[in-house]
Amino acid sequence: MIGSIHEECGVFGIWEPKTTDVAKTAYLALYALQHRGQQSCGIAVNDDGVFTHYRDIGLVPEIFTQERLEKLGKGNIAIGHVQYSKKSLINRANAQPLHIRHIKGNMALAHNGSLTNAAELRQKYELKGAIFHGTSDTEVIAYSITNARLTTPSIEKAVEKAMYELKGAYSCVLMSATKLIGMRDPVGIRPLCIGKTSDGAYVLASESCALDIINAKLVRDVRPGEIVVINDGKLTSITTHCKGSGKICIFEYIYFARSDSDIEGVSVHKARQKAGELLAKQHPVDADIVIGVPNSGLDAALGYSKASGIPYGFGFIKNSYIGRSFIQPSQCQRSDAVKIKINVIKSTVSGKRVVMIDDSIVRGTTCARIVNLLREAGAKEVHMRVSSPPFIYPCYFGTDIDSKDKLIACRLDSVDSIAKEIGVDSLGYLNVDSLYKIMEGANCGFCDGCFSGNYPIEIPKNQAVNRFETKIHENESHERT
Amino acid sequence: MIGSIHEECGVFGIWEPKTTDVAKTAYLALYALQHRGQQSCGIAVNDDGVFTHYRDIGLVPEIFTQERLEKLGKGNIAIGHVQYSKKSLINRANAQPLHIRHIKGNMALAHNGSLTNAAELRQKYELKGAIFHGTSDTEVIAYSITNARLTTPSIEKAVEKAMYELKGAYSCVLMSATKLIGMRDPVGIRPLCIGKTSDGAYVLASESCALDIINAKLVRDVRPGEIVVINDGKLTSITTHCKGSGKICIFEYIYFARSDSDIEGVSVHKARQKAGELLAKQHPVDADIVIGVPNSGLDAALGYSKASGIPYGFGFIKNSYIGRSFIQPSQCQRSDAVKIKINVIKSTVSGKRVVMIDDSIVRGTTCARIVNLLREAGAKEVHMRVSSPPFIYPCYFGTDIDSKDKLIACRLDSVDSIAKEIGVDSLGYLNVDSLYKIMEGANCGFCDGCFSGNYPIEIPKNQAVNRFETKIHENESHERT
Amino acid sequence: MIGSIHEECGVFGIWEPKTTDVAKTAYLALYALQHRGQQSCGIAVNDDGVFTHYRDIGLVPEIFTQERLEKLGKGNIAIGHVQYSKKSLINRANAQPLHIRHIKGNMALAHNGSLTNAAELRQKYELKGAIFHGTSDTEVIAYSITNARLTTPSIEKAVEKAMYELKGAYSCVLMSATKLIGMRDPVGIRPLCIGKTSDGAYVLASESCALDIINAKLVRDVRPGEIVVINDGKLTSITTHCKGSGKICIFEYIYFARSDSDIEGVSVHKARQKAGELLAKQHPVDADIVIGVPNSGLDAALGYSKASGIPYGFGFIKNSYIGRSFIQPSQCQRSDAVKIKINVIKSTVSGKRVVMIDDSIVRGTTCARIVNLLREAGAKEVHMRVSSPPFIYPCYFGTDIDSKDKLIACRLDSVDSIAKEIGVDSLGYLNVDSLYKIMEGANCGFCDGCFSGNYPIEIPKNQAVNRFETKIHENESHERT
Amino acid sequence: MIGSIHEECGVFGIWEPKTTDVAKTAYLALYALQHRGQQSCGIAVNDDGVFTHYRDIGLVPEIFTQERLEKLGKGNIAIGHVQYSKKSLINRANAQPLHIRHIKGNMALAHNGSLTNAAELRQKYELKGAIFHGTSDTEVIAYSITNARLTTPSIEKAVEKAMYELKGAYSCVLMSATKLIGMRDPVGIRPLCIGKTSDGAYVLASESCALDIINAKLVRDVRPGEIVVINDGKLTSITTHCKGSGKICIFEYIYFARSDSDIEGVSVHKARQKAGELLAKQHPVDADIVIGVPNSGLDAALGYSKASGIPYGFGFIKNSYIGRSFIQPSQCQRSDAVKIKINVIKSTVSGKRVVMIDDSIVRGTTCARIVNLLREAGAKEVHMRVSSPPFIYPCYFGTDIDSKDKLIACRLDSVDSIAKEIGVDSLGYLNVDSLYKIMEGANCGFCDGCFSGNYPIEIPKNQAVNRFETKIHENESHERT
Repeated sequence: MIGSIHEECGVFGIWEPKTTDVAKTAYLALYALQHRGQQSCGIAVNDDGVFTHYRDIGLVPEIFTQERLEKLGKGNIAIGHVQYSKKSLINRANAQPLHIRHIKGNMALAHNGSLTNAAELRQKYELKGAIFHGTSDTEVIAYSITNARLTTPSIEKAVEKAMYELKGAYSCVLMSATKLIGMRDPVGIRPLCIGKTSDGAYVLASESCALDIINAKLVRDVRPGEIVVINDGKLTSITTHCKGSGKICIFEYIYFARSDSDIEGVSVHKARQKAGELLAKQHPVDADIVIGVPNSGLDAALGYSKASGIPYGFGFIKNSYIGRSFIQPSQCQRSDAVKIKINVIKSTVSGKRVVMIDDSIVRGTTCARIVNLLREAGAKEVHMRVSSPPFIYPCYFGTDIDSKDKLIACRLDSVDSIAKEIGVDSLGYLNVDSLYKIMEGANCGFCDGCFSGNYPIEIPKNQAVNRFETKIHENESHERT
Repeated sequence: MIGSIHEECGVFGIWEPKTTDVAKTAYLALYALQHRGQQSCGIAVNDDGVFTHYRDIGLVPEIFTQERLEKLGKGNIAIGHVQYSKKSLINRANAQPLHIRHIKGNMALAHNGSLTNAAELRQKYELKGAIFHGTSDTEVIAYSITNARLTTPSIEKAVEKAMYELKGAYSCVLMSATKLIGMRDPVGIRPLCIGKTSDGAYVLASESCALDIINAKLVRDVRPGEIVVINDGKLTSITTHCKGSGKICIFEYIYFARSDSDIEGVSVHKARQKAGELLAKQHPVDADIVIGVPNSGLDAALGYSKASGIPYGFGFIKNSYIGRSFIQPSQCQRSDAVKIKINVIKSTVSGKRVVMIDDSIVRGTTCARIVNLLREAGAKEVHMRVSSPPFIYPCYFGTDIDSKDKLIACRLDSVDSIAKEIGVDSLGYLNVDSLYKIMEGANCGFCDGCFSGNYPIEIPKNQAVNRFETKIHENESHERT
Repeated sequence: MIGSIHEECGVFGIWEPKTTDVAKTAYLALYALQHRGQQSCGIAVNDDGVFTHYRDIGLVPEIFTQERLEKLGKGNIAIGHVQYSKKSLINRANAQPLHIRHIKGNMALAHNGSLTNAAELRQKYELKGAIFHGTSDTEVIAYSITNARLTTPSIEKAVEKAMYELKGAYSCVLMSATKLIGMRDPVGIRPLCIGKTSDGAYVLASESCALDIINAKLVRDVRPGEIVVINDGKLTSITTHCKGSGKICIFEYIYFARSDSDIEGVSVHKARQKAGELLAKQHPVDADIVIGVPNSGLDAALGYSKASGIPYGFGFIKNSYIGRSFIQPSQCQRSDAVKIKINVIKSTVSGKRVVMIDDSIVRGTTCARIVNLLREAGAKEVHMRVSSPPFIYPCYFGTDIDSKDKLIACRLDSVDSIAKEIGVDSLGYLNVDSLYKIMEGANCGFCDGCFSGNYPIEIPKNQAVNRFETKIHENESHERT
Repeated sequence: MIGSIHEECGVFGIWEPKTTDVAKTAYLALYALQHRGQQSCGIAVNDDGVFTHYRDIGLVPEIFTQERLEKLGKGNIAIGHVQYSKKSLINRANAQPLHIRHIKGNMALAHNGSLTNAAELRQKYELKGAIFHGTSDTEVIAYSITNARLTTPSIEKAVEKAMYELKGAYSCVLMSATKLIGMRDPVGIRPLCIGKTSDGAYVLASESCALDIINAKLVRDVRPGEIVVINDGKLTSITTHCKGSGKICIFEYIYFARSDSDIEGVSVHKARQKAGELLAKQHPVDADIVIGVPNSGLDAALGYSKASGIPYGFGFIKNSYIGRSFIQPSQCQRSDAVKIKINVIKSTVSGKRVVMIDDSIVRGTTCARIVNLLREAGAKEVHMRVSSPPFIYPCYFGTDIDSKDKLIACRLDSVDSIAKEIGVDSLGYLNVDSLYKIMEGANCGFCDGCFSGNYPIEIPKNQAVNRFETKIHENESHERT
């Protein structure tokens, strides 16, 4: 989907049996997780208790040059992070991993998710004299663990204790002087998996595609509520907070994750293809070709084609990656943002009745522009099929779903109105019931709050409010008197 | 193909009816042509006869920042260039467009192709006292035109005269104080097309995908041997050197061009899909799934699937574009160059008999590594099909085909030996005869010299020698006495 | 002195009556203070309570480009900082100003000096659950103020309360949502002055040269122990901690400050010239010319010349500023570090008996190299005179005086031995008693601890230890069990 | 002088007996020559006939990073260049050294000076088909030598022949596959000297300060009209064009050169000091202190003080070097361009009658601003003395003297009017006759054309025209028909 919904983060951690180029390994893994966050990134390296750390705004290959990686040096533990942030929150102080010093020494922390009680916890610690350098939830988690550490005998016990007060979605990797720790909230909303290499290195990562690039094998997912501790070549597990099978975010399968990842025992590619198959059954249409909007609609398009018997075709070329320095398309009189990203393959669609598949529609403007490109290229009919239900509820667990008044499915009162606005001949969404089939065989349940309004965790009290408004705003100032 | 054969260049030119942001338009067009050359790029802008010019080593979005584009300023004509060069020839002096001053004022020139008599012409002009700043053929072409200009009444007449002495492949765009000129060699080995916008701007580009991104419509290809002159809102044509239908490089269809381009009336995507279909007929196999090596094998894989009835699947994920600052994979103990570029989607191939399609095999090493990845992911059988014949002859016309002793099809004496070396269960190449079918309906014939040894132009005398060795070497020094 | 003693910081703050380009004003002021710290710098801007902030490693003109300054935006309050750090402590987390968020909102803080009880305070707050992002004293001061703020009605009252627990040297500027605050420790070891512009802006700066560059007039120095609060166009003063006349670091006059600054009512240039005059009386010599080592020895050399009647000459040319990217001289076979920095004017010294003046001798190696350059240029005799006494005691108050075993005056037991080692014909240091004369008329006394061992504040308990060793080390790790 | 007259270039060349880090040696030498040109720079390295070359816009330490120097590699010959250019001519194509390839191989060339017949020669070669990449005279010189090389047996013979047609000022260094060559025009307007190291390396440089930094000893100046050829460890001399003692530019002594250089047997520092002494005799005044405007007025101020008996003082602090990224002072509301560069030391001038010395007055605006700063700092009287006569004639030989209508001495008809405009109590210039005394003992005569209108070489025909207008303009376009 070339639109505006974003996962907020990807995390990575590695424990090596001996000192090695952990920074470069983390770099490659973060490069494979880049789709989970393109706005800032960071790596922290632990060389026998000495931490070296770099984080900045930009893409992994932009920030981590050869020179920078060499300055990070070698070590036997490293953690890393890629991040998407709402534009107003992008600054270095919010980039991760955090590297902090507390009463027991060094700690580095990287977080994927969103706390629902961040504001309360922040205030709790501020009333004890805490100072915050940024506005991220990660700093709140760091305080929670640090304060628990004062009254617990080890870092993992402190993590266990902190989890009693942390509410919401969090999949974290954490590094102390000697240990690599992974923690996942009791609902397990964000993914986190464990890998191992043939020579005994342990790896934690948001997705298994980060294991593949570094030749690690997927061992299993961290369980919802589980804490895993890697130390001295052994992985131990603390299961105090493991309450049930968990409810992972369904949108990880629909859009966020990379299709070559396996999450909770299910192939993301297969899940998407299945969604396309179900969509074909639910919303059949008489047409000549099925095309997917790259890259998020491609897998479902293949499924739709298989189930419907309508031939699969390549409808678009997607341009290569556009880094930070790319000019603003608005400044170029002869093009526009969509044309810079994709181009129609005219020979595929000209004179044809086209089924176009995408994973979702957010505001509808990009979608309308793409439909128009197809018509200009000679498509006779354009039938859009969406491999997920309409978003109509906010997400509080670490994604960036737009405010209600901008979501086309909230703004307009019927599928027909949406079809009319985006200019298609017909439109069909996958229904919520079908979602239960795409993850068949998964080790856990799923959260479909954004489609159904049924949330697996208590949401912040003032429910009407957009989640960003419930947080401490960047740059906000109280001290006025 | 993730290997090592490269097109050498892409060119672009625009003539606007009034002064505008031509630099930004050129930037976007070059971005769409980036696949034709990733090592250097440049733009020259003409603002009422005053030329501003920038060229450097790097990718288009790396070199042309917002600030740099603004320094180029506005104008009503611009030309641009992207370039691939053999590593030893990469330097700024060889980047294009060239901006030169001659007896009649300013000229800028960008070239795609390779002269077969560059060394002779270079020596001819050196004996008249010429000095060269680089080692590119483009500077030779500039001298040829400049010298012709001394005895001709206009720049286009000088181009016409120069074409009598230029031998080989050249598709050029050229800008004088008031004119935009396109020229294509009489054989038409490299493509060059004409576009027009709704408000009267004329565009020249190596491929039509560069027209799409800037909302220009394809008018037609420049004819082999044709010179087109754009001035005062009119395009005029000089056809002195138009001798026949021409013979465009077949590899433009097989690999070089972007699949959304139309060249000489034929869709590149369709040509590739057709190649896959022919391949299925020529080399059928009993299998469960057909996958393409991204991105070059995808179109042919779809054709193979259609013709064979074996389902099409997504076998690989290709990582996003890797810029200049990406670390050397060799330096990372836990990965390798192929894994950084692609990852197998295990759920697609596990337990399956797989047909893997690619457009060519160059050295074979990358191919062998990919086959191995499929086996590690659980593929039961791997059958490779190649949508072109084996390379066995050198190319003298602007591509970078490796030296004979490294080409696997030259090194090994049978398809079976190649199959064994790359580790596949079976291997089939498209035969030369089938090539005639993939371009059916094209406005011109094609050159298949690299497969057949039949060249449409006289090749340099010392045929045994690799073409790079027939050129003046960068940095070579004669003055020893 | 081209050697190795360094002031640790310079601070700046401005309060403007209306919103304006405060970032650019801060930039120029920091540029004028660059001599006080060349390793990192930062600016924080306050636009109606919203803070924007940037700090990094590098020189002011390197870090703050046009683009960066524009991103900082406009505002009506700003603070800035330049810093020198021991090499192992240079990292972004230690750069200043700190921008933190606490229970009452935003605060930014910049500090010049060094706490003597930093480790104790750090531990005190860590035992309450505090986390530290860096290893600087500034973060300790921030905690102290933040904690005091919990039980005080205003930020200035919190500062007043914090000063009861802060020990050592600190001259700070602090910015809240609406106020600019300056604070100076009760001994007043580091300077801090107040300026005002003709249109009502208030300025705080380490030295008056930062006022000159922005067209502000020096009002007065902040008194030792004073807190000044600027708000609503008025400056108010809190004098709770003002105990006496204070004891400013004498080395500010001898070397640290820029000679065009006036500190505590005394011109730095005049003080240095006076030191040279006293030196001439104390250590006369029969010679032909007096030269100063640029830039620190020039003022004293002029004084020596005046008092002795020996002509003043230009003995050296100092090369322009060398930024961060300058190559390591050690890597160049044909030069050395001293030659890159200065060159002898041969016509001045050839055949002459030379008196060479510098402000101090640290390790002696650079000095010996310079003496050798003079001899190579033909000097017949070289008599060195030093405008301060020998360093023999450590400094705990914010300077970087080398460890005892490297200081030449500690290593060798007599002035004659030093003279021999550096290769001069005679050597004389200014005695401690004379120091009292160079600051005649100053508003405060001075600290001469590094010469006498008499410190105006209690020093850290383990006196034998180098001061850096008493601090929490960067990257140190406690958590081992 | 903080004003607007500029030398155009500095050149450097080195021949080493064996392969070594010549690029780094050239870097340091160019750093020492940076005062001769701050807008572009370049180095070309010769490693056994293979040339590597880099040139760009910016200061030496900005352009030549560690990484860049390492890419230049090692070699046994190198040449380098620093350049000042009129703003409109700054572009990479005009940066030097030029690296060109001609019929005999590689040549690199760096030039200091200005040809008076560049336009004629340019046209001559263009009529033979030459193409120019830039607009510099250097490319003209390259063509002249290359064309001569066609009919001469060696590169040095070609240089000798070329000198018959080159008119004007040129001091060049040139590198062929095996030789380092220096050439100086028959009048010797720009300096060029020869140095040697203890281990047998030969060096050519615009000024001796570039020898000092790399530990080479000054051997002698290249004679006016001389060609020196260094090859196989020997220096040979061709004296065909050596006609007389030469007439070096007097402004090299007054302002352009660094005061630690010796040129034609005369110390620049001594010459300036002498100018100050003569000025004291010619324009005495009753005053309390003599100060120089840094850095160009300092030497003469010391001379004025000595001859007059009025004490010498430090009147100003000059800020460190301002690189390319420094913000435009015009953009900062609270400062101005002069204040950013210098600050008055108030204690020196307050309440005093001040004599202020500078080497020249160009437009007068900067001077007036400085005088005003002195008055603001409390100076009772300001008497300006200038250590050269007024400029009233244009220079055609490689300097950037402003157009006549901007020069204050051309605009106003008397010294009194100038004094009034710049706001001084009295003003005196050194007279032309005195110039003859400041270079006493020099090996050659001097050109004082800018003061007297007597030029040692025929100047371009259209004398009324500003010299830049007689050149081919950057970007000019003839081809209009």
